[in-house]
Amino acid sequence: MKKDIVRKHQGKASVLLRKAGIVITSGEKQRIEVADCGFDDIDNCGLQILVYENNERYCAKELVLFSRQICPEHRHPPIDDKNAGKQETFRCRWGKVFLYVEGEPTPAPKAEVPANYRKHLTVWHEIILRPGDQHTLPPDTKHWFQAGDEGCVVSEFSSASIDEKDIFTDPRVRRIPEIEQD
Amino acid sequence: MKKDIVRKHQGKASVLLRKAGIVITSGEKQRIEVADCGFDDIDNCGLQILVYENNERYCAKELVLFSRQICPEHRHPPIDDKNAGKQETFRCRWGKVFLYVEGEPTPAPKAEVPANYRKHLTVWHEIILRPGDQHTLPPDTKHWFQAGDEGCVVSEFSSASIDEKDIFTDPRVRRIPEIEQD
Repeated sequence: MKKDIVRKHQGKASVLLRKAGIVITSGEKQRIEVADCGFDDIDNCGLQILVYENNERYCAKELVLFSRQICPEHRHPPIDDKNAGKQETFRCRWGKVFLYVEGEPTPAPKAEVPANYRKHLTVWHEIILRPGDQHTLPPDTKHWFQAGDEGCVVSEFSSASIDEKDIFTDPRVRRIPEIEQD
Repeated sequence: MKKDIVRKHQGKASVLLRKAGIVITSGEKQRIEVADCGFDDIDNCGLQILVYENNERYCAKELVLFSRQICPEHRHPPIDDKNAGKQETFRCRWGKVFLYVEGEPTPAPKAEVPANYRKHLTVWHEIILRPGDQHTLPPDTKHWFQAGDEGCVVSEFSSASIDEKDIFTDPRVRRIPEIEQD
């Protein structure tokens, strides 16, 4: 992704965070990760992430998604004997997020997914999160999500984040950029 | 604490959360913990706590303190071979909090503490957190904090919370109420 696109999306994310009443520092704004998952199609696929803290025991971050952005399907596999995989809690702060998890597929789900991405989505049990709603995902279970029409801000509380271990259903996904953003 | 005082402080806490832009559900409002630490002096000593999630791996909550309320000095001791004690990150969302930790005592600290509580405070290294500021406390280290004049809302991200294991410097503190609030 080009630097100017990264800067633009960091700016847009900071506006949405402000709408959600969330104060961040100028240093934090500059380190918002703009993750396009390797598709170079950030308006449709990807998300903006501000990590507050990530240590061996716990992690806390804000996820910002613009209108209809998709975070592709993935799971957090077991790491070792002490770590059964990342467990995470999503709490919606602003906007609306359509979260899909393993379980009975929901008839007429609210997500709108371009065919290019839809073909690699396998779980369709829908959970809709509005501000104040939250949901906890067990380790090693598939999930993906899409923001509603106005975008969303979602707090994620979890065990340690080890992004490079995440397993995406779509083999095209590159979660860790091959060239660093700056 | 009487039920009507608990209800009143739950209501005040939900107002402060709203000021901070934080949306909670009506069910969450009713389960805000009003912790007076056994002093029955909640306007000076104690805090309001909304736990979003607390599991074996991580915990996330909001702490709400009204003007000049104090959370008494305590530490989170080791629990077992796998748990060196709770580690926690405080992130100020609204207002101002004066946090005191182990280290060089700060000359002229900003806290204003009644003598009754001051005599059991032993750490005086001051860290001031304003919205967007955060600080991570290592396990098993002493700390206490006081809200500024307008109160504060602080997000706490941590390893598992096991409140009954906390060790308070002041032997009078009763962190877990002897009679349940409801």
